[in-house]
Amino acid sequence: MTVRPPRPDDKFSFGLWTVGWIGVDPFGTATRSPLTPREYTEKLAELGAWGITFHDDDVVPFGADDATREKALRDVKDAADGAGLVIEMVTTNTFTHPVFKDGGLTANDRSVRRFGLRKILRNVDVAAEMGATTFVMWGGREGSEYDGSKDVYAAHERYKEGLDTIAGYIKEKGYDLRIGLEPKPNEPRGDIFLPTVGHALALISELEHGDIVGLNPETGHEQMANLNYTHTLGQALWHGKLFHIDLNGQRGLKYDQDLVFGHGDLMSAFFTVDLLENGFPGYPDGPRYEGPRHFDYKPSRTEGMEGVWASAAANMATYIALAEKAKAFRADPRVQEAMTAAGVLELAQPTLAEGETAASILADDEGFDPDVAAQRNGGFVALQQLAVEHLIG
Amino acid sequence: MTVRPPRPDDKFSFGLWTVGWIGVDPFGTATRSPLTPREYTEKLAELGAWGITFHDDDVVPFGADDATREKALRDVKDAADGAGLVIEMVTTNTFTHPVFKDGGLTANDRSVRRFGLRKILRNVDVAAEMGATTFVMWGGREGSEYDGSKDVYAAHERYKEGLDTIAGYIKEKGYDLRIGLEPKPNEPRGDIFLPTVGHALALISELEHGDIVGLNPETGHEQMANLNYTHTLGQALWHGKLFHIDLNGQRGLKYDQDLVFGHGDLMSAFFTVDLLENGFPGYPDGPRYEGPRHFDYKPSRTEGMEGVWASAAANMATYIALAEKAKAFRADPRVQEAMTAAGVLELAQPTLAEGETAASILADDEGFDPDVAAQRNGGFVALQQLAVEHLIG
Amino acid sequence: MTVRPPRPDDKFSFGLWTVGWIGVDPFGTATRSPLTPREYTEKLAELGAWGITFHDDDVVPFGADDATREKALRDVKDAADGAGLVIEMVTTNTFTHPVFKDGGLTANDRSVRRFGLRKILRNVDVAAEMGATTFVMWGGREGSEYDGSKDVYAAHERYKEGLDTIAGYIKEKGYDLRIGLEPKPNEPRGDIFLPTVGHALALISELEHGDIVGLNPETGHEQMANLNYTHTLGQALWHGKLFHIDLNGQRGLKYDQDLVFGHGDLMSAFFTVDLLENGFPGYPDGPRYEGPRHFDYKPSRTEGMEGVWASAAANMATYIALAEKAKAFRADPRVQEAMTAAGVLELAQPTLAEGETAASILADDEGFDPDVAAQRNGGFVALQQLAVEHLIG
Amino acid sequence: MTVRPPRPDDKFSFGLWTVGWIGVDPFGTATRSPLTPREYTEKLAELGAWGITFHDDDVVPFGADDATREKALRDVKDAADGAGLVIEMVTTNTFTHPVFKDGGLTANDRSVRRFGLRKILRNVDVAAEMGATTFVMWGGREGSEYDGSKDVYAAHERYKEGLDTIAGYIKEKGYDLRIGLEPKPNEPRGDIFLPTVGHALALISELEHGDIVGLNPETGHEQMANLNYTHTLGQALWHGKLFHIDLNGQRGLKYDQDLVFGHGDLMSAFFTVDLLENGFPGYPDGPRYEGPRHFDYKPSRTEGMEGVWASAAANMATYIALAEKAKAFRADPRVQEAMTAAGVLELAQPTLAEGETAASILADDEGFDPDVAAQRNGGFVALQQLAVEHLIG
Repeated sequence: MTVRPPRPDDKFSFGLWTVGWIGVDPFGTATRSPLTPREYTEKLAELGAWGITFHDDDVVPFGADDATREKALRDVKDAADGAGLVIEMVTTNTFTHPVFKDGGLTANDRSVRRFGLRKILRNVDVAAEMGATTFVMWGGREGSEYDGSKDVYAAHERYKEGLDTIAGYIKEKGYDLRIGLEPKPNEPRGDIFLPTVGHALALISELEHGDIVGLNPETGHEQMANLNYTHTLGQALWHGKLFHIDLNGQRGLKYDQDLVFGHGDLMSAFFTVDLLENGFPGYPDGPRYEGPRHFDYKPSRTEGMEGVWASAAANMATYIALAEKAKAFRADPRVQEAMTAAGVLELAQPTLAEGETAASILADDEGFDPDVAAQRNGGFVALQQLAVEHLIG
Repeated sequence: MTVRPPRPDDKFSFGLWTVGWIGVDPFGTATRSPLTPREYTEKLAELGAWGITFHDDDVVPFGADDATREKALRDVKDAADGAGLVIEMVTTNTFTHPVFKDGGLTANDRSVRRFGLRKILRNVDVAAEMGATTFVMWGGREGSEYDGSKDVYAAHERYKEGLDTIAGYIKEKGYDLRIGLEPKPNEPRGDIFLPTVGHALALISELEHGDIVGLNPETGHEQMANLNYTHTLGQALWHGKLFHIDLNGQRGLKYDQDLVFGHGDLMSAFFTVDLLENGFPGYPDGPRYEGPRHFDYKPSRTEGMEGVWASAAANMATYIALAEKAKAFRADPRVQEAMTAAGVLELAQPTLAEGETAASILADDEGFDPDVAAQRNGGFVALQQLAVEHLIG
Repeated sequence: MTVRPPRPDDKFSFGLWTVGWIGVDPFGTATRSPLTPREYTEKLAELGAWGITFHDDDVVPFGADDATREKALRDVKDAADGAGLVIEMVTTNTFTHPVFKDGGLTANDRSVRRFGLRKILRNVDVAAEMGATTFVMWGGREGSEYDGSKDVYAAHERYKEGLDTIAGYIKEKGYDLRIGLEPKPNEPRGDIFLPTVGHALALISELEHGDIVGLNPETGHEQMANLNYTHTLGQALWHGKLFHIDLNGQRGLKYDQDLVFGHGDLMSAFFTVDLLENGFPGYPDGPRYEGPRHFDYKPSRTEGMEGVWASAAANMATYIALAEKAKAFRADPRVQEAMTAAGVLELAQPTLAEGETAASILADDEGFDPDVAAQRNGGFVALQQLAVEHLIG
Repeated sequence: MTVRPPRPDDKFSFGLWTVGWIGVDPFGTATRSPLTPREYTEKLAELGAWGITFHDDDVVPFGADDATREKALRDVKDAADGAGLVIEMVTTNTFTHPVFKDGGLTANDRSVRRFGLRKILRNVDVAAEMGATTFVMWGGREGSEYDGSKDVYAAHERYKEGLDTIAGYIKEKGYDLRIGLEPKPNEPRGDIFLPTVGHALALISELEHGDIVGLNPETGHEQMANLNYTHTLGQALWHGKLFHIDLNGQRGLKYDQDLVFGHGDLMSAFFTVDLLENGFPGYPDGPRYEGPRHFDYKPSRTEGMEGVWASAAANMATYIALAEKAKAFRADPRVQEAMTAAGVLELAQPTLAEGETAASILADDEGFDPDVAAQRNGGFVALQQLAVEHLIG
């Protein structure tokens, strides 16, 4: 596999915290020394990235005074500019400091919620200042270990209040910024609120300022809820809410692995890329994801900096390879034929004809014989095997 | 544990297909002989149930002529009336017959979708005729095993089209009937659309007739998506969409076990009942679930009819016991104190004061010291241990 | 991907029950009509298979009289011979008939155990007669849903008794036959005894006739226990107990999917084939699996017979493709270099030198500096990316 | 629930690292300040514990010089003696320091393995010196994220070499010490070797000094492999290998939660205690676990020290309550009757009569009619409901 190098129009971006992860895990201390944000930025540019993203705390020490803060932010902005990288997204850390042990927006302690909200709002200004267009919110500490410890109604009330306050502030300020919620079912909390893309979409539908609130679905997070990531992206797109994306790898139901994209479920990664690059088969002019291809992964703790950079490059190389394969898959006449045989395109046809109603469809059974119709060969396995052939061919 | 017998105002109801399950599983044939709907109905009444529910095919053989159909339906209605039972819910089987192998509302084959829609619409009439007030829709065959075999955008278009057609028909006919969607992540399909309560709530928010479409969340189904069932019920209630409920038991991430309620995760069952019976702690006048306590379980295949009836009774006895314990839990002054200490009630307080805005909260940090606030003892473990004490005390 | 057609020396074999699965699942009736064993056999031969396998009940109706039985068995043997196929394995169905609802060898009911044992022993004769060299035992009904319903000590006593009786009988008869236990964690029972390869290996170590008892690990079964299938095969080989193998596909923790090999976790399938074809990297003359490549899968219920045969062919084509890729992977100098850098071969070196003892290694710390050693770049991600490149290249 | 206070003969013990966990998790820094080993010890004694356990690094800073080491160890021994506590188990930390990022006994890097072995051997001396009788080994870093990075045969060779070296050293020194292996399927590695009790039992069967090597199964670890913990304990007892036990709580397939015992799957906890306290139903004089009731849990990160001590006490109180309930369960005549009806005791009867052989059982089918036998009511649900009644009654 020799893939072409990444290009700016691939829109590959990385969180500074990804290559910047130094390997602290629940059972071990750091295996790597941190570099500066500038160093990460420059190296990512060299590897072919188009953008970077960060949490406030990745760049500014928690509790820093204003001067330190300004300097640190200016420095990372300069680094990005100097390296020709976009800061496409900024996000707030409301999970590391012990004050957030019970959440930011839904902590039982109201003073903590006020502090959390303030931290996020201040960071909205930062995001705008940095030129970011997406403001991701991962509420990793919003949740519980024990059902008795949270009033779930209140939690959703507070989540809504927080999001509307933030989204309202964005509008008021006139920032060109949209919020991307990042669901996760568990870890670090036993059960996190808004555990999946579905739950987040539902909450958004109740917001006052829901028009600028959408999703940032992460591969591994949906898979930790035993769900199909590509289906989830599809539903988010259907709702017009796929604002941003976090690509990585996960191998089954366990701790959040944050592997390199493609080092988890490779077949699923292929269809994810197929959707991102080619859209829905039955809607050539349908909704498409046009945003960054953002990687939210962790270089394995076993690796030194050499392995960090190898892993960053691997995310991009695999994406490019899968994109090429997905193009070829769709263009292959055998595939088109198999899709037709399997009725994949037929599903885009409305069930009712123009003008038909419940009453009219009930009036005539069209001589449909279910026993005969049941004989139709689905053709799904043959289509899947063509996908395997393209993927590993 | 001697619990009082079930009473009508407990609103316990059972699907005819629950006690009627004869033990066919993927690796084995029937271990029990079926009784008639009338026999199941009478015995359930004797055990203390208040209502029954059924799929069309539980009562009327698939493809039966109109006379057979009418007779079968009249017979079950007579049986229910005779036994003093309510037929509180009716649902359509769009999964057993091979014609539905790729789904009913989202089958790739349009003629199958039209047939499925027709079957459902006819059954809406049945539901109304039977006096049911809920019409459950479980789309167990709507989904895929392979990502390539479904256009996910189209699938959601068709799901919406189908639901709006059905809900529109209900309104047009003036039926006192609401639709309850029943999500499930997988089985019998590899990945089912609308896999969780969240995904279904999201879809409903896009419907034209979404006002009469809500949820029928099943204990085991949410747990098969690695989610917290009580949280899920809470979010559905927050959306005003908890229309019906399917109680049962599941032990972890495996096939759909449909155990007796309480024979799965017992601690979770306690908090589920606590929510259903006592509502949200911080909202004494808040939203409550007032509908049936419906059991959707399967008597284990190892059991004869003796075990079938023992299991039906066990569902109700366990629910009653948990309800009594949940009442005592809430009333216990130590629990109230622990809830206060843990800030459970504090979460119902808005984060912003009346009149506060993003700008105003940003203007003043209130001298909040995160390091000090972080010291607060959560008190969640102590509260949980009180729950254990009440549960097993 | 154009792969060469299957050859006899690939040793591909199929259970008659695989292509013979007619699509009955927990929520649906058959979507296909059964063919005769002869028809399945001939078509498998045509597709390039080398062998077939079967349960007694796949060929002989449960409870058939001796004449029917003899005729049916002769017929399948003739069919195999005529088609040039080996009957490499035979297994006993102790799970479908309701009498086995609580197990065969570990049913609480002793008369059922005696019946089960008799059925198995009779089938040992059949296996020998058919020329099979492996006798698989899947105890799918040996287990429980409720901890109280089984004496776990007794269950292991009975399992041991049963296996030793059967293995003793094989020896006594002088059959060239080895037993392959097939572990599974759950489904159809809530928890099955000997849930993983590890548990089965442990039990075997206590048998009197354990020398002819080994493992038949199935891809999806180990994955249903959240385990790494390739690791499991490796441990079975280390114990000298990998007697047979069941290849298929599974997508996460859910019902037993029995997908086509490669249609589950493709990356894992690659390393499985790498182990089967190339053995352990550090032991060129080490233990190898030389037995059949047996597929135990189910053609999706959506498919007609066209899809059944497409899926059977897909298993073989994917295996061949992966085998070629695995050969190329191992031969690639970049891979060899990366394996060396990652220390993969170093692990074959004993930790202690010849003659070293606990005392001698304690005597000298060799000036080892853990902080320095910790800096070593693992090189695992780079090696994994080379695997991705070979797999999809 | 008013339970009696813990007593020494309850043999409750705690790892110093349990109450000593300060709340560092993958997404957050410490929420509590550490106390000294002496402080933890004294408080545990006050709460009613009988013993403590520790890793070398819990007491002695990694890399400390001999004087510091001796002093620290003497201090913890003095503290235990002073508080009247037994140091019943000692274990080695081969996972926190970055040098162990690829394992201790199975690291690819041989110099790391030698260092790991040395650290463990030195700690064997410590264990003996402290009067411990169990030496637990949790190989949490022995494993891989990527199948290509480990030679699985070599890994088992090295595991065996390491264990035999350590066990041989124990024998040579004449220490009254047995090794307890602690399996875990994943976390912190993607896949850990010896992932379950079964795999560890299998490995032990191949050891030269396997007689002093057994198991230390942890509740949550087995449940992370989707397995039944009580079954697993039962199999370990059947092998005579249940040397030690780690009790805690886990809620499903996610990160290692280490909740309070009983705060996970409560019904499973009941049957675990039933087995530990009452043994196997059919073997009144059968094997019993006589060792410590050791808790390996983490006080939730949301808690201050108040919650730490509340959680420690909760482990013991719940165990005592469950033990009392389990006694009452077994003694209840209704339960005895239900167990008899369900055939639970019948399973202890050998399947073959004295003198029977495969040949003799084959000779006579005893007129057994499977269709009639299949009618027997299992009685498992009724028995389970009695367990529910006792548990929550």
